[in-house]
Amino acid sequence: MSTEAPLFLPEDRYFGPDSRQKDVALQLYQAVAGLPLVCPHGHVDPRLLADPDYQFGSPAELFIIPDHYVFRMLYSRGVPLEALGIPRRDGGPVEQDHRKIWQTFAEHFYLFRGTPTGVWLTQELHQVFGIEKKLTADTAQEIYDQIEARLAEPEFRPRRLFERFNIEVLCTTDAATDTLEHHQAIRTSGWQGQVRPTFRPDAVYNILSPDWPAQIEALSRVSGIDIHSYATFTQAIEARRAFFKEMGATATDHAALTPYTEALSAQEAEAIFQRALKGQATTDDHRRFIANMFMEMARMSIEDGLVMQMHVGSDRNHNALIAERFGPDKGDDIPIATEFTRNLKPLLNRYGNDPRLTLVLFTLDESTYSRELAPLAGHYPALRLGPPWWFHDSIEGMNRYLSSVTETAGIYNTAGFNDDTRAFPSIPARHDLWRRVACNWVAGLHVRGIVDMEDAHQMARALAYDLAKETYRL
Amino acid sequence: MSTEAPLFLPEDRYFGPDSRQKDVALQLYQAVAGLPLVCPHGHVDPRLLADPDYQFGSPAELFIIPDHYVFRMLYSRGVPLEALGIPRRDGGPVEQDHRKIWQTFAEHFYLFRGTPTGVWLTQELHQVFGIEKKLTADTAQEIYDQIEARLAEPEFRPRRLFERFNIEVLCTTDAATDTLEHHQAIRTSGWQGQVRPTFRPDAVYNILSPDWPAQIEALSRVSGIDIHSYATFTQAIEARRAFFKEMGATATDHAALTPYTEALSAQEAEAIFQRALKGQATTDDHRRFIANMFMEMARMSIEDGLVMQMHVGSDRNHNALIAERFGPDKGDDIPIATEFTRNLKPLLNRYGNDPRLTLVLFTLDESTYSRELAPLAGHYPALRLGPPWWFHDSIEGMNRYLSSVTETAGIYNTAGFNDDTRAFPSIPARHDLWRRVACNWVAGLHVRGIVDMEDAHQMARALAYDLAKETYRL
Amino acid sequence: MSTEAPLFLPEDRYFGPDSRQKDVALQLYQAVAGLPLVCPHGHVDPRLLADPDYQFGSPAELFIIPDHYVFRMLYSRGVPLEALGIPRRDGGPVEQDHRKIWQTFAEHFYLFRGTPTGVWLTQELHQVFGIEKKLTADTAQEIYDQIEARLAEPEFRPRRLFERFNIEVLCTTDAATDTLEHHQAIRTSGWQGQVRPTFRPDAVYNILSPDWPAQIEALSRVSGIDIHSYATFTQAIEARRAFFKEMGATATDHAALTPYTEALSAQEAEAIFQRALKGQATTDDHRRFIANMFMEMARMSIEDGLVMQMHVGSDRNHNALIAERFGPDKGDDIPIATEFTRNLKPLLNRYGNDPRLTLVLFTLDESTYSRELAPLAGHYPALRLGPPWWFHDSIEGMNRYLSSVTETAGIYNTAGFNDDTRAFPSIPARHDLWRRVACNWVAGLHVRGIVDMEDAHQMARALAYDLAKETYRL
Repeated sequence: MSTEAPLFLPEDRYFGPDSRQKDVALQLYQAVAGLPLVCPHGHVDPRLLADPDYQFGSPAELFIIPDHYVFRMLYSRGVPLEALGIPRRDGGPVEQDHRKIWQTFAEHFYLFRGTPTGVWLTQELHQVFGIEKKLTADTAQEIYDQIEARLAEPEFRPRRLFERFNIEVLCTTDAATDTLEHHQAIRTSGWQGQVRPTFRPDAVYNILSPDWPAQIEALSRVSGIDIHSYATFTQAIEARRAFFKEMGATATDHAALTPYTEALSAQEAEAIFQRALKGQATTDDHRRFIANMFMEMARMSIEDGLVMQMHVGSDRNHNALIAERFGPDKGDDIPIATEFTRNLKPLLNRYGNDPRLTLVLFTLDESTYSRELAPLAGHYPALRLGPPWWFHDSIEGMNRYLSSVTETAGIYNTAGFNDDTRAFPSIPARHDLWRRVACNWVAGLHVRGIVDMEDAHQMARALAYDLAKETYRL
Repeated sequence: MSTEAPLFLPEDRYFGPDSRQKDVALQLYQAVAGLPLVCPHGHVDPRLLADPDYQFGSPAELFIIPDHYVFRMLYSRGVPLEALGIPRRDGGPVEQDHRKIWQTFAEHFYLFRGTPTGVWLTQELHQVFGIEKKLTADTAQEIYDQIEARLAEPEFRPRRLFERFNIEVLCTTDAATDTLEHHQAIRTSGWQGQVRPTFRPDAVYNILSPDWPAQIEALSRVSGIDIHSYATFTQAIEARRAFFKEMGATATDHAALTPYTEALSAQEAEAIFQRALKGQATTDDHRRFIANMFMEMARMSIEDGLVMQMHVGSDRNHNALIAERFGPDKGDDIPIATEFTRNLKPLLNRYGNDPRLTLVLFTLDESTYSRELAPLAGHYPALRLGPPWWFHDSIEGMNRYLSSVTETAGIYNTAGFNDDTRAFPSIPARHDLWRRVACNWVAGLHVRGIVDMEDAHQMARALAYDLAKETYRL
Repeated sequence: MSTEAPLFLPEDRYFGPDSRQKDVALQLYQAVAGLPLVCPHGHVDPRLLADPDYQFGSPAELFIIPDHYVFRMLYSRGVPLEALGIPRRDGGPVEQDHRKIWQTFAEHFYLFRGTPTGVWLTQELHQVFGIEKKLTADTAQEIYDQIEARLAEPEFRPRRLFERFNIEVLCTTDAATDTLEHHQAIRTSGWQGQVRPTFRPDAVYNILSPDWPAQIEALSRVSGIDIHSYATFTQAIEARRAFFKEMGATATDHAALTPYTEALSAQEAEAIFQRALKGQATTDDHRRFIANMFMEMARMSIEDGLVMQMHVGSDRNHNALIAERFGPDKGDDIPIATEFTRNLKPLLNRYGNDPRLTLVLFTLDESTYSRELAPLAGHYPALRLGPPWWFHDSIEGMNRYLSSVTETAGIYNTAGFNDDTRAFPSIPARHDLWRRVACNWVAGLHVRGIVDMEDAHQMARALAYDLAKETYRL
């Protein structure tokens, strides 16, 4: 292996392969590449932007330790998470030498060939940190030095990067019980960056969790409503939604194993809630309670105008050993087959015709794109399809999404793009990848005689910018 | 937006993007473009062709009001169906001004960018009606004028269009209780156009429907058989099949939620039938009765030679509000995951080895193409795979179908193409799209060194013409 | 049809269509085309290689009669299996004239246009047998003569072909009760070809089979362990694994309808085993017993180092008539939808983090590639994804596999390629097809700016050779 190869980042990357399509794609891309970034859904910690002097830590703390996309791949090929510095729940020993962690990462960087993580990192290293060489075992320490040096500079404070990245708006994801103190700090700081919270109440719906009583207590406290019944519970939820909205939120977000929806009667909901308070809720209670809360969330969205998001179909913490030793979000969430047509029927029959509701659906089961999601979104006024999610937020994932969804739903029933990332400095690379792939896809429509250049330009812009902004009411 | 852009319909459309593939595709296409159209399955109203002076009505009546592919997309983006003139079941007010409906349609025509409806309409407007401009808010009324003027001309009577479209044979879809009076009228008129009925008995199988007693009464009446038992019911069905065959039918068609098949004993079938007559049939009775009727249809097909079609996997009338207000077929039929391997086993084990049977399968679940349908069709002599259906009757849908099905089943276990349309003037555009996409796909095989040009030409012709004709015994 | 067309086998076949991608693909291919063939999984009969003078029989015996990929396609279009010389279980009459069988095959060879069988056979006829003409009704007998003449030559003995094919290692698939006498004969013969057995114990796990008591008796006999309990049963299995390992095996292989796994307690396992011995096992016993044996196999693999393979999702012998008349493996095994995420959880939670285990998964349900398999393999150290299997071992099947699996799992969590064939002379064509398609896919990554040429070369080599060898510990 040549150890000091230059980075491979051709100008026409992710376009083609056909050269005429590449030319058209480049033309479309150049017209949208400079548009501001709209980030309606993601997991950036608002703390980064609350503190004007926030520093990212070491290159390993920035790129490896918090990023399950990265460390799961090394783990899958036999590198223990401890060797990558992932903290153990029991406080057991893990690698503390960040240069060593970085070296291990660099030695295994070949695993990311042909993956989105590989292309994001390559672009990020170059465009954000100015790295000119390919990351290998031999260049690892030199590149570490360079990143470290950059991170020490004032221009690498998150707020400066936010501005340099040309982010128009960034939405975070926040628990229902969150006081939003960091959001408050951003608002009162006078800094002009637009950062908004998103209401994510999953933890207070999870009546089977050992943590649930503490969640309810916290919800009572922050809402100022004494929760002792389903009625007071929903009042507290409504109060929190109002608070989030006041703090700039335009959306809510909901995760569940399935998109099952069902309207419980007030009595049924109350009975389940009371069983839950006594620690006697069953698995079926849990399933129906979540299903009912989806209904409630749609109702409240119609009332308060918050856009509703559903992220379903992930079997979280599949690997019990990892969950026990390192906790959640460690790269072992595995998708399952998902059914939307029947599961969403109760909700859509009650609320799907109401144009005040916007419900954005995300799936990890690509077989639902053309079979269920596009036909649903191509009919119900309330529905929008979220961009390819998680494992599918990739070049081929985007191609499959665009070619499976659009013919039935059109692009105008999609929600454009969101980066869904915790990794703040990767945001430009992720949007750039989408914009390139979307432009190349539109270019493919043009060179195959399906849309003229006027339409192509409008479609490229809609996918790159307009649809996200419009869908999320930003 | 330039408001008077010319139509975008390049000669090499839907080919490529690779230029060598485009060249080969064009060569293959030119050899099949002029072949007559074989239309073995669709929903054209035979009345159009029974009356030599039939007129289509206004452009809105031709293009929008009856076409759920069109109005569902506008509805999904907030346009009320009333604004598009869709009649309400309660007779409530809907837009009566067809120019206004057309204007609304034109203003939303951008929603169809990249969709098959968009490309069909564009081609139809140009090739059938001679429109030279792109449909936009600004050109809407001028184009309305042009279409209206054309529709008044004698050359735009359906029979003249049938001849101009070079339709060799057109099969309609007709209820088991239909008297086929329009088909009779066509036959006795002396007009040479070949129009054939297809036997579709779904309504008389639907024992749970409130309408079922009336259906059975009608079936008794038209068959002249007093239906009071399962035995007399099947006799009546046989009599109707014989009548349809006499009237030119070569096929039957069957829709169901799933392809579940099961042979009931005579006693079981009779017991269910008697419960149904008393209005006491259960959901499970319904499911098993349909499953049994699939078996009966296969048996009768072996006896009378009618080709059997199954269209399964659509959850019809998903949106209760739309169904109640506007009735069925309003763009809210949503696909579900479908299982063929086990569901069809009883039928295939009994009849699938019999070469007298031809059973054509259609699916809305693309994941079944390579997993179930191609392996089944690549083994059982009785099976043929219908072309990509409904939402998948599109450029990318066809590409996915051809590349998923062919490697296992070959093209010679497919049924070629059918347009499946209610929209008579769209027939040439639909066949042209298929022929172009099929030729481009075959061209892809050639430029990738998989088939020589001699084979390529034969495959293109088979897909464009021969297979449909042979499968449906036309 | 021109009856004497030359074979169509362009140098750049299966590449492209884009010409720049073709150029890069050819460059990558030329660097791997000469690498030895690693064949870690397949169904070649070891007898071929045990006897230095083994002869293949007639062209029909070589190409048609034993190959269900071939005869199922002719059967699907109405050719009776009897006409192809497939032996009936009842000894009933079948075609004995192999020239006539060959003629029938040639007349139907057009059915294989665009199929992998078509391209394998074309390449095999040319490269192994030197045929220069296209197989048609008119060239059939001349080509038969040529093949027959070649098969009589000493260079067409299997061992000579093994050497000429440049096979580095070939693994067969052998029953748990097999004495491995042919493997023994190969080892003691002094011939240098590396041929290894694979331990496939399905038959001794199938407690519902009428044949099971005989299997257990045979297992007792060959293991020298008197099997009267679950404990003695597992001892016998362990003894056989040890014997297979001694005889060169590096892997085991397991087929089942689903990948359901469950650890039974010793008592439960014993109870089921005793019911089975008495012929009283239930369907549920069977399901759980298989699930438990998967757990046991993983445990034993950790102990003895044999790589574990799972081939799941085929509903075997779907066509009862064919099974009764001709027996199993007659082209009527049909895939079903398959679930891995939940079914494998018990096994992966117990053994999936252990780097001593290598578990290679194969699927017939392509919807699981991106949804379940790639996320699982991209996390668990024990997992590898087997290459596209059976119906999906094809150009488009490989393209779908590579583009669905790699972005999440990377190529380094795959097991490279195996040919999985009974048809010994087709081995080079199958590997060549994979190498070409893999190189073309990598070339696509390069021309789209995703990987540089250095990475591209390493990926091509890994896919063509390294990954298979490493995964199977060869």
